[in-house]
Amino acid sequence: MENCVFCRIVSNELPSVKVYEDDDVVAFLDIAPVNKGHVLVIPKEHFETIIDIPDDVLKKLIVVVKNVSEAVKDALKSDGISIAMSNYKAAGQVIPHAHFHIIPRFHGDGLKLWSQGSYNDGEMELFGSKIRKHLSDSNDNIKNK
Amino acid sequence: MENCVFCRIVSNELPSVKVYEDDDVVAFLDIAPVNKGHVLVIPKEHFETIIDIPDDVLKKLIVVVKNVSEAVKDALKSDGISIAMSNYKAAGQVIPHAHFHIIPRFHGDGLKLWSQGSYNDGEMELFGSKIRKHLSDSNDNIKNK
Repeated sequence: MENCVFCRIVSNELPSVKVYEDDDVVAFLDIAPVNKGHVLVIPKEHFETIIDIPDDVLKKLIVVVKNVSEAVKDALKSDGISIAMSNYKAAGQVIPHAHFHIIPRFHGDGLKLWSQGSYNDGEMELFGSKIRKHLSDSNDNIKNK
Repeated sequence: MENCVFCRIVSNELPSVKVYEDDDVVAFLDIAPVNKGHVLVIPKEHFETIIDIPDDVLKKLIVVVKNVSEAVKDALKSDGISIAMSNYKAAGQVIPHAHFHIIPRFHGDGLKLWSQGSYNDGEMELFGSKIRKHLSDSNDNIKNK
């Protein structure tokens, strides 16, 4: 896609430090790392979010995410790996070309997860029911709704 | 695995609000949501991190992550979806049974991404080279190292 920074990295119009590449997937260093060694894994074809990525491409992507996670952990002797994907602007997605972040983590690196809240009485069932309606094909399989 | 909270949710020993279930994967509401409607997607079999999940199971998981993301977005009319996975304690993983977080996001919900830094001169190539060494099978394919 014209003017997409990541499409231009795929085509080598823009420089990047790649760590993996195959016919469908590229992995390269984020130029603004949360921790150094922070890698982005993207489909070569332009899709905006996870929802837009065809299943066959998504399956290839996630196996690369796994393999790069292991490589980053081994190469940098990191204590952990955070994986993240922001879909749409409201989630903080800046480049509208779907990408997984792989961030090496170290004990005491100071990065904090979002704080977690709670549900009021009955509210959890309500949210579950709303979401299940949009996954209706699977409803019959749920053993403990 | 005995004493694993998520294994006990899989076996229905512990209650949960499930939104999806098949032979290999379960999705249920996080009881302590970052935003309400926050779902966890897990493999039924016990694996600690993404690195431990066999590729065939991982491929099934990520398709469920995609489908649940779409369902959450549609059901809650959210503006975005954050996907996250913490691997190992240093990354904030509390339950050592691999899980993807799917968090509905809304404009102005106040959740901030981690701030991003930068590399010194030459450092980016160094990190790229270290990681590539651990992904050596793919090195020949990289067109622009």
